Amino acid sequence: MTELEERLLGELLRISILDPHSHINPHAAASKSLDDLLGYHYYTELAHSAGMDKAPLSAETPAIERARSIAQYLPAIENTVQYSWLMEIAWTFFGFDDRTITPQNIGRLFEAAAANTATPDWEDRVLRASGVERVFLTNDFDDPLVGFDTSRYVPCLRTDDLVFHLNNPRTVERLNQATNSTVGDANTLVAAVGRLFEHFTRHGAKACAISLPPDFEPLPVDRTDVDPVLRRLLSGATVTGDEYRSVSRFVFWTLAAFCAQFRLPFDLMIGVNRRVYRSGVFQGQDLFDQRTSLILYRELFNAFPQVTFPISVLTSSQNQELVSYAWIFPNVVTSGHWWYSNVPAYIEPDARARLTAAPATKQIGYYSDAYKLEFILPKFNMYRRALAKILAADFVIDRGWTEERAIALANQVLRTNTQRVFQV
Amino acid sequence: MTELEERLLGELLRISILDPHSHINPHAAASKSLDDLLGYHYYTELAHSAGMDKAPLSAETPAIERARSIAQYLPAIENTVQYSWLMEIAWTFFGFDDRTITPQNIGRLFEAAAANTATPDWEDRVLRASGVERVFLTNDFDDPLVGFDTSRYVPCLRTDDLVFHLNNPRTVERLNQATNSTVGDANTLVAAVGRLFEHFTRHGAKACAISLPPDFEPLPVDRTDVDPVLRRLLSGATVTGDEYRSVSRFVFWTLAAFCAQFRLPFDLMIGVNRRVYRSGVFQGQDLFDQRTSLILYRELFNAFPQVTFPISVLTSSQNQELVSYAWIFPNVVTSGHWWYSNVPAYIEPDARARLTAAPATKQIGYYSDAYKLEFILPKFNMYRRALAKILAADFVIDRGWTEERAIALANQVLRTNTQRVFQV
Amino acid sequence: MTELEERLLGELLRISILDPHSHINPHAAASKSLDDLLGYHYYTELAHSAGMDKAPLSAETPAIERARSIAQYLPAIENTVQYSWLMEIAWTFFGFDDRTITPQNIGRLFEAAAANTATPDWEDRVLRASGVERVFLTNDFDDPLVGFDTSRYVPCLRTDDLVFHLNNPRTVERLNQATNSTVGDANTLVAAVGRLFEHFTRHGAKACAISLPPDFEPLPVDRTDVDPVLRRLLSGATVTGDEYRSVSRFVFWTLAAFCAQFRLPFDLMIGVNRRVYRSGVFQGQDLFDQRTSLILYRELFNAFPQVTFPISVLTSSQNQELVSYAWIFPNVVTSGHWWYSNVPAYIEPDARARLTAAPATKQIGYYSDAYKLEFILPKFNMYRRALAKILAADFVIDRGWTEERAIALANQVLRTNTQRVFQV
Repeated sequence: MTELEERLLGELLRISILDPHSHINPHAAASKSLDDLLGYHYYTELAHSAGMDKAPLSAETPAIERARSIAQYLPAIENTVQYSWLMEIAWTFFGFDDRTITPQNIGRLFEAAAANTATPDWEDRVLRASGVERVFLTNDFDDPLVGFDTSRYVPCLRTDDLVFHLNNPRTVERLNQATNSTVGDANTLVAAVGRLFEHFTRHGAKACAISLPPDFEPLPVDRTDVDPVLRRLLSGATVTGDEYRSVSRFVFWTLAAFCAQFRLPFDLMIGVNRRVYRSGVFQGQDLFDQRTSLILYRELFNAFPQVTFPISVLTSSQNQELVSYAWIFPNVVTSGHWWYSNVPAYIEPDARARLTAAPATKQIGYYSDAYKLEFILPKFNMYRRALAKILAADFVIDRGWTEERAIALANQVLRTNTQRVFQV
Repeated sequence: MTELEERLLGELLRISILDPHSHINPHAAASKSLDDLLGYHYYTELAHSAGMDKAPLSAETPAIERARSIAQYLPAIENTVQYSWLMEIAWTFFGFDDRTITPQNIGRLFEAAAANTATPDWEDRVLRASGVERVFLTNDFDDPLVGFDTSRYVPCLRTDDLVFHLNNPRTVERLNQATNSTVGDANTLVAAVGRLFEHFTRHGAKACAISLPPDFEPLPVDRTDVDPVLRRLLSGATVTGDEYRSVSRFVFWTLAAFCAQFRLPFDLMIGVNRRVYRSGVFQGQDLFDQRTSLILYRELFNAFPQVTFPISVLTSSQNQELVSYAWIFPNVVTSGHWWYSNVPAYIEPDARARLTAAPATKQIGYYSDAYKLEFILPKFNMYRRALAKILAADFVIDRGWTEERAIALANQVLRTNTQRVFQV
Repeated sequence: MTELEERLLGELLRISILDPHSHINPHAAASKSLDDLLGYHYYTELAHSAGMDKAPLSAETPAIERARSIAQYLPAIENTVQYSWLMEIAWTFFGFDDRTITPQNIGRLFEAAAANTATPDWEDRVLRASGVERVFLTNDFDDPLVGFDTSRYVPCLRTDDLVFHLNNPRTVERLNQATNSTVGDANTLVAAVGRLFEHFTRHGAKACAISLPPDFEPLPVDRTDVDPVLRRLLSGATVTGDEYRSVSRFVFWTLAAFCAQFRLPFDLMIGVNRRVYRSGVFQGQDLFDQRTSLILYRELFNAFPQVTFPISVLTSSQNQELVSYAWIFPNVVTSGHWWYSNVPAYIEPDARARLTAAPATKQIGYYSDAYKLEFILPKFNMYRRALAKILAADFVIDRGWTEERAIALANQVLRTNTQRVFQV
């Protein structure tokens, strides 16, 4: 990096982290072993893609054996930035100082991880060392939301199951149980969903969220039209694909309406097809179809001007749409760099377009999407390096900005926007 | 910038401007106040997107109050390159020297703009200071094209209304009036369109132009097939969506045929969906669907080898198609960087691909798309900076070109191609 | 280039070339004259696109006149990287030292090429000077595969005709002849295709390959369902478009099954539409529709886990899908930079994403696609320069890798992966 980039990065590293989206389990936020870290789907799926059999991933396999199995394939993925997160964790949190992880040294790393994660204040130490203030969660709709500090771990109502799996009787059971209802038609369903919003906001939830397939097109559905379909569905009958699509649209639109009523932003993560690689590892089966467009959301954005939609897109080719829709629609906000786009090769061009073409106030710069606290730091650091390059090239050099002004912009997309949009 | 880039940019700044596409009104080409500049849709839509209510944009609001309203939201868009055009105007033309525009200093800028724009030779001064030689216009098909200097302001026949709004009775009235006709069927319609071409070319028009939605597919339509539909439509009856599509295709194909006959290039601006954000500000409602392809134009390009099609695409993801189609089809020419792609984050990669993969003779480097003369300079300067970087990296450094040779390439895409393609 | 990039490039130039895909004719591998080089479709199509008539391309035109005709249009394409390959050949192989090729000096170059290519060991000299070890071919399914050294020129079974032109009686004749069969139904067709695989593998073939249109979706077709259609088709009757699509799918799926049985990788080159510009020069008529997705191949990738699919995509916008599918599917391998994406403006971002996000073991870095040996070197050198930049920026600088480690990664994507995937 140039000296300018280094100086800017140095300042960016001092901005403490508000992480507006993660999959952290607040009851087991930090890892308990190297197994928890290597179990992150990035490593299991990349190792499997590089040739590893899935057998060692079974629960019966002792953790150290599983680690050894994965370690055999780590050399094949040393080139990936995903691997670099793991190395940064090993160096930062476990005092490891080898340059790579191999079948030879994995045992030593395993023990170092065990020793560190076993310290009683490990969670606090990781948060402090990472400069993390608050972390948003991804809570199932029937999460009781008790037993953790909601000022540190911010609840978020995740709604994929309600929209896409209401045809699974188990989802309806869970909904009935969580809301003390017996949903059987449109009215009782809407009422139950309303009770979820009450429960979540009462427990400090600051967002509603959902991930969506590339062909989903939210449209309003008349309650009286969908009611007969819902009655059949909720009584256990099967409905056609077209009928279920109208159910999905109805539930989705209902969620948006409750977001308006409860003043919650609605995080949309657009573009994922589930179970594309059917023999893939856990969480390593999903891919996408680049043929999607935010035009599918035009009616939604028009219908709910009072709801803020922080939007993540799965592909870099959709980033220009995201920039343009955020530039035009007051209620569209760009949000982070998601999954297959969460590598510098895509973060840099995507963030550059956002930072130079959409209002600074309408950008949530980054979220970790992490399952364990240890990953927040290396992932944010990856984004910070990309951001330092953009600030140097496009703002300090091209536009003659002072470094202070560039850092103020970074602070806005990393902190103050998150605070304002999510009211935290 | 590096010293090499600075030297190249210095030379690029000396190339005087032929602007092959703008929305300049030749009867009021320069701005008369800051209100004219802040009224550019980029600022109203970005300010609205950042939270500004639309009320102050009404004609009843005094200009200075409107300016103050917009100024409240300018800090939110300081990061955008669109904002940088405004600052460059303030610095270059109005002697402003604050680094930003704020609610505090907007009054001072307003007065500086008023004082400068009120000078009697303001239009000439702006053109001279900007190094602008000629500017292409966007003329309604019923523009009388009188009362301005067509050697300075080059007429261009804009045809969106004819293709997409012939189902609006007002369009037919205007066509009848402009051509002294009574169009009622295919033959009279074609004859009337022919008269428009006569009128425009007699008054120095050098291009026909149109903007097109992403799903438009031009195909030939048999005159006898469309005639009954046209008779109904032109008699005031309603026609189906499918029927109107065949009308659009017929009119479009007729325009291409007249372009062949009158030897006019046909500027195609591909990809815009109108009125996506229905509550948006004036000209701030349009967006796009990235799912489009130049393959939709294959029959057109095959059918009219004698017509040059300078093509603009709305999205960077379609740029590779544009490069490839210009590389293969003799009648396809790349044209500028349009609208949502008119920011350095997209100009740089898009121009780089064009300059290194398609014939140099088939590239119209840039146009301003400006509504007021003052915007031509900062927009061309934005392109020049991007161009200087590409010339430095890809030609002088990678290919060992002399700087003179690199500048000659720039001169070709900025001037000589425009002169040859449009015969100006 | 920076000193670091230069050092890395110096090392990359020492890695000898395994070229995993070309159109070299092993019976006339090197050029016999400048005509052979200028006849490469890149030059004929770019010259034609820049204005050259097709007449001089006819076989009746003397070679020197054809060269003079093309030379008139070479100044129009000097900016292209495709032109730079030609200059590198002229400088490297023919001792030419002008900076450009013009109508004035083309005669001199023509003679220099004639003198050099006439030397008896020209083919060996080109291979040696280029550091080429082995070159994969593209063989028609009825190629006898005799009369050349298959350890230098590796046969590859090209199957476009079988899948897309079985409705051409000539294809069936050729198939019958090549396999000594009389195909008349599904069973005899499958048996004949099996014989092709036997013939090819017996003669050292190391891959099966096909290019595919953007809307092709491989799906399994029941043999009993397609049999009546095949009987009609093979008896000379015409079948509908839908029926032929099921034939294409059946043949394609059959090929994949034989790849499994014969342990051949199946090269898929995805995205080309043939004959888009119908009046184009030979091999200069094909373009694409960016609206395609690897999701169309999900069933194939799931059904044949034992077959490796080295995949080329025609557009850079599909590169992220390729990276992601290679990251998830064990049997998907990224392969080279194809055709309209084979320019540094697309190679650099595409290769960067691959090298930093998919396993290093699953990447075939580059192939030449060349028709004559002389083009292998300049095309690989273009890739090497892009690779040197990526290694410098993303690995040595950003990740702190040693230069040795970066070069080892390059060696992997340039050599050892090719050796392992294709078993050569």
